Amino acid sequence: MSAFSSLDHQFMGRAIVLARRGLYTTDPNPRVGCVLVRDGEIVGEGYHIRAGEGHAEVNALRVAGDNARGATAYVTLEPCSHFGRTPPCADTLIEAGIRRMVCAMVDPNPAVAGKGLDKLRAAGIEVASGLMEREARALNPGFIKRMERGLPLVRIKLASSVDGRTAMASGESQWITGPQARSDVQRLRARSSAIVTGIDSLLIDDSSLTVRADELGLEQAEQIAARQPLRVVLDTDLRMPVDAKILCQPGRTLVVTRSRDEEKAGALQGAGAEVMVQAGEGRIDLHTLLAHLAKQEQCNELLVECGATLAGAFVSTGLVDELIQYMAPKLLGSSARPLLELPLERMAQQVPLALADIRHLGADLRLDWHVLETDGNQEH
Amino acid sequence: MSAFSSLDHQFMGRAIVLARRGLYTTDPNPRVGCVLVRDGEIVGEGYHIRAGEGHAEVNALRVAGDNARGATAYVTLEPCSHFGRTPPCADTLIEAGIRRMVCAMVDPNPAVAGKGLDKLRAAGIEVASGLMEREARALNPGFIKRMERGLPLVRIKLASSVDGRTAMASGESQWITGPQARSDVQRLRARSSAIVTGIDSLLIDDSSLTVRADELGLEQAEQIAARQPLRVVLDTDLRMPVDAKILCQPGRTLVVTRSRDEEKAGALQGAGAEVMVQAGEGRIDLHTLLAHLAKQEQCNELLVECGATLAGAFVSTGLVDELIQYMAPKLLGSSARPLLELPLERMAQQVPLALADIRHLGADLRLDWHVLETDGNQEH
Repeated sequence: MSAFSSLDHQFMGRAIVLARRGLYTTDPNPRVGCVLVRDGEIVGEGYHIRAGEGHAEVNALRVAGDNARGATAYVTLEPCSHFGRTPPCADTLIEAGIRRMVCAMVDPNPAVAGKGLDKLRAAGIEVASGLMEREARALNPGFIKRMERGLPLVRIKLASSVDGRTAMASGESQWITGPQARSDVQRLRARSSAIVTGIDSLLIDDSSLTVRADELGLEQAEQIAARQPLRVVLDTDLRMPVDAKILCQPGRTLVVTRSRDEEKAGALQGAGAEVMVQAGEGRIDLHTLLAHLAKQEQCNELLVECGATLAGAFVSTGLVDELIQYMAPKLLGSSARPLLELPLERMAQQVPLALADIRHLGADLRLDWHVLETDGNQEH
Repeated sequence: MSAFSSLDHQFMGRAIVLARRGLYTTDPNPRVGCVLVRDGEIVGEGYHIRAGEGHAEVNALRVAGDNARGATAYVTLEPCSHFGRTPPCADTLIEAGIRRMVCAMVDPNPAVAGKGLDKLRAAGIEVASGLMEREARALNPGFIKRMERGLPLVRIKLASSVDGRTAMASGESQWITGPQARSDVQRLRARSSAIVTGIDSLLIDDSSLTVRADELGLEQAEQIAARQPLRVVLDTDLRMPVDAKILCQPGRTLVVTRSRDEEKAGALQGAGAEVMVQAGEGRIDLHTLLAHLAKQEQCNELLVECGATLAGAFVSTGLVDELIQYMAPKLLGSSARPLLELPLERMAQQVPLALADIRHLGADLRLDWHVLETDGNQEH
């Protein structure tokens, strides 16, 4: 590992800014940026926009043309060494004649980590990695978790009052947060691979769980909304009505059930749903479901938007990485519904969190909490 | 009202900084700062330190000496025009020969507001007021409320988890927040005129409710802790034990009761308490108590440190100005105790808040909420 100069940091910083432009579109691929520098000047830069299109390195090389010869390439993620939908970037960089490669992090897939860099090194290119690794990892928390652990990153969205309540006991709850918070939820959806909800919430709200271009508050909103995250409904007993609004939205809806009622399943499929039966009894096993979504659906980031019961179940299984709390400036009182149905008896069972970010959204606050790993305070 | 120059703002800003130095010591007087400027240079400055000692203007004039002649005086509060424990500052400023007076706000007592300025004007001094009034008012929210409305400012201290809980159902609760939050509570106490609690909390915790110099984390902590806020215990049925820890602390403890048990009252008085019997039946009337504390005890800022029941009662009576929420980064779950016992049925009864400040205290957050006034969502 070599020492990095302040110019190295500057150019890698630029590559990270570029990578971020793909935040809403690269799924299921990672967000990656690349900057090519010769004689202290940027001769080409690029980022990955969407799966099936050019990788960041290729886009940057296209801009640089012959100027890539002898250049240093700054890439936020180790260049790929295998043939996917596009040829290996490592080969392309070698052919272009770069002299030095600086990458922020190696491939998070333990089976391939380092192979791209080895290939470059074997071609006589000076290689260094680990520059601004923390910032680079933050670009792709879901992709990294899927590669490293075979599970998606799980984010739970919670809207609460200052006293930690979500709705009155009667169920009265509409819009406890304001329009800026709701627009922010749209952006959370847009960066996610899938949105998970429970049938109970769905039956009450008849929600669509779509990304709506006009509510994103982003440039190129139409292109972003062209990719709709997979919608996943946990529906143990297959209670989803065939006329549910969610079924006639653009994008896919996956209904996960324990029910063997093939007639009902067929009716839902006819209405546009995909139905997946999970073997076994009782409530749907969340770990099995998440492993499936990672492996079969390439889900990187999962957004859970559900009621207190399912949210509590997710937390108690230890599968949640982040709580995104939208806090409305009001007290709803002690009869109101809890943030999470999470019955704990002893202080030692508490779920420890760490504040990762905080911001104002109109009159509301958004608090991003990371769930810290513990031994023994989970149900299993 | 004249326009103010940027130099005016600069000098008044300095006067406000000076006033803030009295934050923990001036009670029951207001925090006031004064800067004297001649030919664009500060020739004297001062602030009020404690009741019975020199006012800010007098302290600044003492520094300036003869240089005060022809100077402009910047004062954060209209100079007094009456004889109190010290002679009227308006007279002293006139005698010192100042040419111009700029004050941030007039006296909040409607009966005397403007009289100090009138006196200066009558003496031929150029007078302007209203410069940085908002900042000046923020120095003395309690003093201003007492003068304007005959009630102290009421702050409730709350310690909660992210899901708005204070303790496990069993009562297990010790230290849900960290040492920096606890030290901050000491500073909240130190700026308060009085600390209010309920007998139930006191019986459980046997707390002292004192300002402890070694926990303040402030310079001159010993001088600050020399003034102990009045401790007020709401004890409807006079259940306070004579050996309660709170009774053998420096400073006064006032037990407010409905009980006419003179023997018990006598025993408590013998143990160091003052006992005040509130006429009437049922729970202690909070409005009557607060009016008493404002009028008889000159209470500016009241800190309520109590359990969920009394905190809920304070909020539901509409007497609370600020909630100071110390939020620990953890989930305590839905069986845990609520932040406030405040049973509301309809969304329309919600208590609207506004975020006034937010800061990190170690791993905890402190969120300052102002309670917004509403019509009709209070119990009476």
